[in-house]
Amino acid sequence: MSNYSFEAALRKGQVLQNSEKPIGIFDSGVGGLTVFKAISELLPNENLLYLGDTARVPYGTRSRETIRKYTEMAAARLTDYNIKMLVIACNTATSASLPGLESRFPDLLVAGVIEPGAAAACAATSRGHIGVIATEATIRGQAYQKAIGRILPKATVVAKACTLLVPLAEEGWIDGPIAENVAQKYLSEIFTGADDPDTLLLGCTHFPLFRNILQKLTGPAVRIVDSALATASLVREMLAQACLLNQSAAPGSRQFFTTDNRERFMATGGHFLGELMPDAGVRLINLQ
Amino acid sequence: MSNYSFEAALRKGQVLQNSEKPIGIFDSGVGGLTVFKAISELLPNENLLYLGDTARVPYGTRSRETIRKYTEMAAARLTDYNIKMLVIACNTATSASLPGLESRFPDLLVAGVIEPGAAAACAATSRGHIGVIATEATIRGQAYQKAIGRILPKATVVAKACTLLVPLAEEGWIDGPIAENVAQKYLSEIFTGADDPDTLLLGCTHFPLFRNILQKLTGPAVRIVDSALATASLVREMLAQACLLNQSAAPGSRQFFTTDNRERFMATGGHFLGELMPDAGVRLINLQ
Repeated sequence: MSNYSFEAALRKGQVLQNSEKPIGIFDSGVGGLTVFKAISELLPNENLLYLGDTARVPYGTRSRETIRKYTEMAAARLTDYNIKMLVIACNTATSASLPGLESRFPDLLVAGVIEPGAAAACAATSRGHIGVIATEATIRGQAYQKAIGRILPKATVVAKACTLLVPLAEEGWIDGPIAENVAQKYLSEIFTGADDPDTLLLGCTHFPLFRNILQKLTGPAVRIVDSALATASLVREMLAQACLLNQSAAPGSRQFFTTDNRERFMATGGHFLGELMPDAGVRLINLQ
Repeated sequence: MSNYSFEAALRKGQVLQNSEKPIGIFDSGVGGLTVFKAISELLPNENLLYLGDTARVPYGTRSRETIRKYTEMAAARLTDYNIKMLVIACNTATSASLPGLESRFPDLLVAGVIEPGAAAACAATSRGHIGVIATEATIRGQAYQKAIGRILPKATVVAKACTLLVPLAEEGWIDGPIAENVAQKYLSEIFTGADDPDTLLLGCTHFPLFRNILQKLTGPAVRIVDSALATASLVREMLAQACLLNQSAAPGSRQFFTTDNRERFMATGGHFLGELMPDAGVRLINLQ
């Protein structure tokens, strides 16, 4: 992973081509690193900035007003770095804040994870029966239910908040009997044995870490849809349409901001990235 | 539970006797309600205010600087209500912030949960071998290890962060195989079969909810010490020494403040209190 300080570039007054400007990726903590990773793999030449608001994580159990306020503070900070696109890599934040962000930053490309995830699930479903698992706030806000309903009005959607999968992923307990029992306990409420979903949408960025366990529990016939991959495809499409794909052949730079407990961010983040985080590329910032 | 607005009393300019002033109890979320409950049962005539900082919970994975800042903001708010005593009913906050609070509020009685918990464990141990389970921040800060060392320098202390027990308690999964497997996985690192602790100190306010499971796993010979009960005794002792015990024969009032998601605070808080929270007694406030 190469690193580069956009802040240093800005200080030096270096002028970036529009297409060379970074993509800002925001999440409440480390979960959005699954989206970061998908974007990084699909668009290796893009310069990427990631901001994880670890001082106020988790957003998933907070009120919509609070989530909106926190997300807008983080988005405003990312725009200081001259980004060409903002990706809200957090289901909870997307659900509460996306329309507000689009109107607040009219000149910026803004993508969330809900629409691409919902579209991918609608494309994947065979019988129009979709199960959605996410955090409490995402399920309560009904964002996936509504997005699927707009794309595929006849779809049947069952949704279940799987709160404990988030701390399990952060603890690194992503396989073994405990993870399996927890996942089973939640899934048993949407897979009851009668007219079960044919597609399971992972509506929380932490959940791709449990993909193997979830597939084992649902059986191979159920299609598991990961919004991280769907979001990366949408990012590429939006940049291409706006003629903002970075044409440079050099590998893009990666820089991480965290709002608290840098050591924990790096240690936990490694699970999600699937590789060690570069020490020099991780900076502690204050959003408050 | 009777309710009473101290704010209303202050607005009306009502003058309270010193001993009638409320006790302010602070926690990062709902965990401190186990301490609140213990104080409420031991001192039923005291007026109690509880503040749970649910907008920024959990503290247990945050840096010491951030924990200190958040705790001082909450303590300052509680002093607005003319409290006679401040109880930091949160191990993480006590560990990071107690000395700072004592110097910032020199005229206030201030108690944390670490010293009483450590003293109770030292009184309970037969062979001086104490296991401590708590959150990451409490274990990392070594507060219990140091407090036990001051009281019983020859004690052997083994400590283990049991991160997942916190969300498990809040999800209400306090018995059954998942809670048991999670607890077992953590305990197996301090109960290895050779020279095991004779006493287990519950160094997190959430953990008393797992007392039965923990006792089953350790076996009946291990003494389980709950800092909530020890803290309530200390509160009574400190108030008595300062001649500030409320002499009124009427049941004390109870009022709760939460900084976010009032509904969730009430629902989850009910698990910890062991009774429903009175709707009129719970108010949303903003600390930021």
